Amino acid sequence: MKPSDVFASITAPTLVLNEQITRRNIRRMAAKARLAGVRFRPHFKTHQSAQIGEWFREEGVHAITVSSVEMARYFAAHGWTDITLAFSVNLRQLQELNELAGSIRLGILVESIESVNALAAGMSNPADLWIKVDVGNHRTGLAWDAPDAILAVARAIQPVPHLRLCGLLTHSGHTYGITEPQEIHRIFRQGVERLQSVRDQLASSGMDGLALSTGDTPGCTLGEDFSGVDEIRPGNFVFFDAMQAARGVCSWADVAVVAACPVVALHPERGIAVLYGGAVHLSKDFFEWNGERCYGMIGLPTFEGWSEPLEGASLVGMSQEHGMVRLQPADLARLHVGDLVCVYPAHSCLTVSALGSYLTLDGGKITTFNK
Amino acid sequence: MKPSDVFASITAPTLVLNEQITRRNIRRMAAKARLAGVRFRPHFKTHQSAQIGEWFREEGVHAITVSSVEMARYFAAHGWTDITLAFSVNLRQLQELNELAGSIRLGILVESIESVNALAAGMSNPADLWIKVDVGNHRTGLAWDAPDAILAVARAIQPVPHLRLCGLLTHSGHTYGITEPQEIHRIFRQGVERLQSVRDQLASSGMDGLALSTGDTPGCTLGEDFSGVDEIRPGNFVFFDAMQAARGVCSWADVAVVAACPVVALHPERGIAVLYGGAVHLSKDFFEWNGERCYGMIGLPTFEGWSEPLEGASLVGMSQEHGMVRLQPADLARLHVGDLVCVYPAHSCLTVSALGSYLTLDGGKITTFNK
Repeated sequence: MKPSDVFASITAPTLVLNEQITRRNIRRMAAKARLAGVRFRPHFKTHQSAQIGEWFREEGVHAITVSSVEMARYFAAHGWTDITLAFSVNLRQLQELNELAGSIRLGILVESIESVNALAAGMSNPADLWIKVDVGNHRTGLAWDAPDAILAVARAIQPVPHLRLCGLLTHSGHTYGITEPQEIHRIFRQGVERLQSVRDQLASSGMDGLALSTGDTPGCTLGEDFSGVDEIRPGNFVFFDAMQAARGVCSWADVAVVAACPVVALHPERGIAVLYGGAVHLSKDFFEWNGERCYGMIGLPTFEGWSEPLEGASLVGMSQEHGMVRLQPADLARLHVGDLVCVYPAHSCLTVSALGSYLTLDGGKITTFNK
Repeated sequence: MKPSDVFASITAPTLVLNEQITRRNIRRMAAKARLAGVRFRPHFKTHQSAQIGEWFREEGVHAITVSSVEMARYFAAHGWTDITLAFSVNLRQLQELNELAGSIRLGILVESIESVNALAAGMSNPADLWIKVDVGNHRTGLAWDAPDAILAVARAIQPVPHLRLCGLLTHSGHTYGITEPQEIHRIFRQGVERLQSVRDQLASSGMDGLALSTGDTPGCTLGEDFSGVDEIRPGNFVFFDAMQAARGVCSWADVAVVAACPVVALHPERGIAVLYGGAVHLSKDFFEWNGERCYGMIGLPTFEGWSEPLEGASLVGMSQEHGMVRLQPADLARLHVGDLVCVYPAHSCLTVSALGSYLTLDGGKITTFNK
């Protein structure tokens, strides 16, 4: 099937995937990790798909990261045997975690003695424990500059026979707000140094051999210096999105998924096209762009896939099922009701989660754990 | 099953529904419409559930509104025979629309001659057409103050045997931004008057007997005067949400759904509890509250259901799977990792869409067309 036939077959908002770009994104990051000698444990919460997981396996990936117990189960059922659940442990799912730990090598995140004690009492199968460290993102984790609390958690883990303390893990998610590549790299390195400082202090208290795990997409994509890092866990890089391209983390040609959406109304008097394609398809995530909210950028279907974003065009408003696209007059004039546009999503992870499956440019369907 | 046992059974983010409040919300709006003598055609995009649809049927509802072809099919399969698809027609789904129109009474929205011509050529089964009029929301529809364009669309419909022009339809969605009940009512009435002015002008051109359909939740809840209106289509009122309660459209006791989310981390040093419950569960919709983004308000499980929102507490940040709750020190001090909190969602329609099913306070599961 040709891309033009694939687009012709689309009747409702559909996530279209370019396999070639996706595989190239995977290959690049895998090669970069190999070259730097760090373990590549990609986060599968972005693509959420067993089939796309196989493309990683072809690049030598054996260890992965996920963000929920359901996702861990899904990938375990698809042959993945080394999975870190990069989410501060949910104590209401101890039974599910224990079952998983009985069949795969399971990594679990802790950030309190309370959680360690609950895992000690509530699990019987062996698990790898990582202490979540906050190096500046201020979402979860123990503050890097208060290592006594980190040491206390590490000491609570040590005597428990089935819990093995693997290392310190962080997510420098605060790189997502940055638009300066140099600054992203600086924050990435700063995070690594902060992890190292915690490790050194734990080592001086007799806790040796702890690994360091880090890795947000901006930091791992723009960073060249992985020294001191044992493991990286980027996820979004597999597809990237409008947010990453607009901020210079990748080029527009690196964005591997778009949401193809039908035009349902044209309002040239206010420079707006209305799409069938809203919050339930794309999510309501946005980034600030030229002083306003941008929910996505707009390309058009081409013979090989989709075009670069139209200049001056942006998805400026969203409701449950509608998207409002601002277009320049010339672009608006050549659109018709019933045409498709290709939305570069603001945040691909959430769009994948909302749409739940992919259509490839040769007409193949790829499912996720959601659908 | 008691509510406390229901909460005890929850391990991951779960949409909990209070059937009593839901039925009361339905009963009130149905009674209000009956008293005013207007047809009540509730929007089912909020609850998306065949089972909850039955609660409307028990209140005498026979005609409904939906926002997608899939939703129309689902409710048609559950015995609904009079459905308006309140979404400017997607010309890429003509075949599906024609099939639907062959089995139920189907209402379709148009706002261009182009769409009317496509429906004339692409459908064979009879359909009710409504012209979408923009009375100030500026999302879709033809401007109310340029009635010539509306007349032109009406004239394009008239000669087509299988298309019946029913009336003028609007969505005063701009009431959602308003926090003043008086102002919401004023905008609601203004919208009705604008529709009436269009109808009068069409009548003077020989187009008689057109019905007027309106109805956003704020306008229909706070409005007392439905004169001149033939049909109302509110949807959100079935559950309401934090946005509506915070703006005074309803009371907190009228909110019929919460997302029960486990606490996974506590950070008293910055006044934050971290929830397992993020954008993929609640959506990323928010409203401005005390000068910052509010993604939801926070209650606690009680013996009968859930508490009113905790004072000074708010869901202030969201990522894919995490929610960040700001709490007052005393509330933070009595929470433990592993506890559940009840999030009043910012926007219930999107939370229903994200979570896809409900758990009632007596432990029953209610599905939607999504799951």
